[in-house]
Amino acid sequence: MDRNSRVPLYLQLIEDLIKKIEAEEYEQHQKLPSERELCDIYNLSRITVRQALQELEQEGYIYKLHGKGTFVAPKSINQNLVKLYSFTEEMKEMGKTPTTQVLSFKEIAIDERVAQKMDLVPLDEVFKVVRLRLADDEPLMYETSYLPKKFFPRLTKKDLEERPMYDIFHDDYKVVVTKAIERFSATNIREVESEYLGMITNSPSMLIKRFAYRKNQLIEYTISVARGDKFDYTVELN
Amino acid sequence: MDRNSRVPLYLQLIEDLIKKIEAEEYEQHQKLPSERELCDIYNLSRITVRQALQELEQEGYIYKLHGKGTFVAPKSINQNLVKLYSFTEEMKEMGKTPTTQVLSFKEIAIDERVAQKMDLVPLDEVFKVVRLRLADDEPLMYETSYLPKKFFPRLTKKDLEERPMYDIFHDDYKVVVTKAIERFSATNIREVESEYLGMITNSPSMLIKRFAYRKNQLIEYTISVARGDKFDYTVELN
Repeated sequence: MDRNSRVPLYLQLIEDLIKKIEAEEYEQHQKLPSERELCDIYNLSRITVRQALQELEQEGYIYKLHGKGTFVAPKSINQNLVKLYSFTEEMKEMGKTPTTQVLSFKEIAIDERVAQKMDLVPLDEVFKVVRLRLADDEPLMYETSYLPKKFFPRLTKKDLEERPMYDIFHDDYKVVVTKAIERFSATNIREVESEYLGMITNSPSMLIKRFAYRKNQLIEYTISVARGDKFDYTVELN
Repeated sequence: MDRNSRVPLYLQLIEDLIKKIEAEEYEQHQKLPSERELCDIYNLSRITVRQALQELEQEGYIYKLHGKGTFVAPKSINQNLVKLYSFTEEMKEMGKTPTTQVLSFKEIAIDERVAQKMDLVPLDEVFKVVRLRLADDEPLMYETSYLPKKFFPRLTKKDLEERPMYDIFHDDYKVVVTKAIERFSATNIREVESEYLGMITNSPSMLIKRFAYRKNQLIEYTISVARGDKFDYTVELN
């Protein structure tokens, strides 16, 4: 710390901690020294250390677990919201190996509520598919999809285990998704999802509802739960 | 409940509860009957009731508080991510009265880290402004903005208390924001923000980092914390 600098001490501390995180001297999910320990290491007041940790938390470099301490946050996957994207393609581009576990595959008669959202008639048949998406064996997203049977009549669980969904749409049914509308909100993760995603219940997660269209025909409605510590989304506004 | 219907009982229960929520028979933040009570009211099994509540939670109609029960979620404000938007304008369009509290206004020498993000030189002077944004007196967002002094040399706290920020940019400095890049992530709210926003610590919130440009010149960097239960964001992908 340079006590003669015009840069406030808490900012100097932030810079030093970020350098250590970026150099992986402190690794992902590693516990940081406690506030008290940081005071001793840097010879700083408790207020200064606390201010630095608060800013680092807000900027997403670290996270706190109640009663357990402060930890280095994992690096996020940044999803650019400019064009249609697929989990499989995105992970491959990042040099990761995507895999999918089909947790359930059911044929159901759709209820009024989902029917309305999907431009269907109540009791129309849809496939309800729940999938866990992983990259390099790490679970990242928990997805529930509704797919009208009339568009994909021969769809099987095995198809979805073997090929990306949009490949099946295209190769087996000549269906190409041309537009998707996505709604993003921040939620606490539920118990069922937290178990599959390996997170603590009530961890923050991004809830994404995707309505995918072939021209103006809705062909897919998917609710994705993405780990809040693993994803962020970028959009450009003009 | 129609036990002869092809529609599963849990879906019938979902529909009934949504009707009651939409008719405001159950109001925002009102406590719902417990699982056990719902079993009695509808003469349904515990599994059926639980499945319905899980789906309603995932769809954002209800939220659970650990040990306290299940409550009706407030209606969300949907922000369409197609063009540049301002909090003030959006709230007015929704018929709400926006107000802003300037919680702090400081002139600081910028540190290396924020300087890099903002295309500035370390120790350049910026205004660091913390504002609470309200609509109809309800606090909704907690925002921290960094504004280079060289672009807005005479900016005062009073200006920001009296006029929307982008009006000041335009009227006093002939600066028009032409582009913004926003990064969205889901986080747990911190103590300082939760107090101002009237939420429980660790409630889910949306963290939005806005980089606003006049042509290719970065003129504003803002970190917004938006209540997760109050906002969702829509984007169209092609």
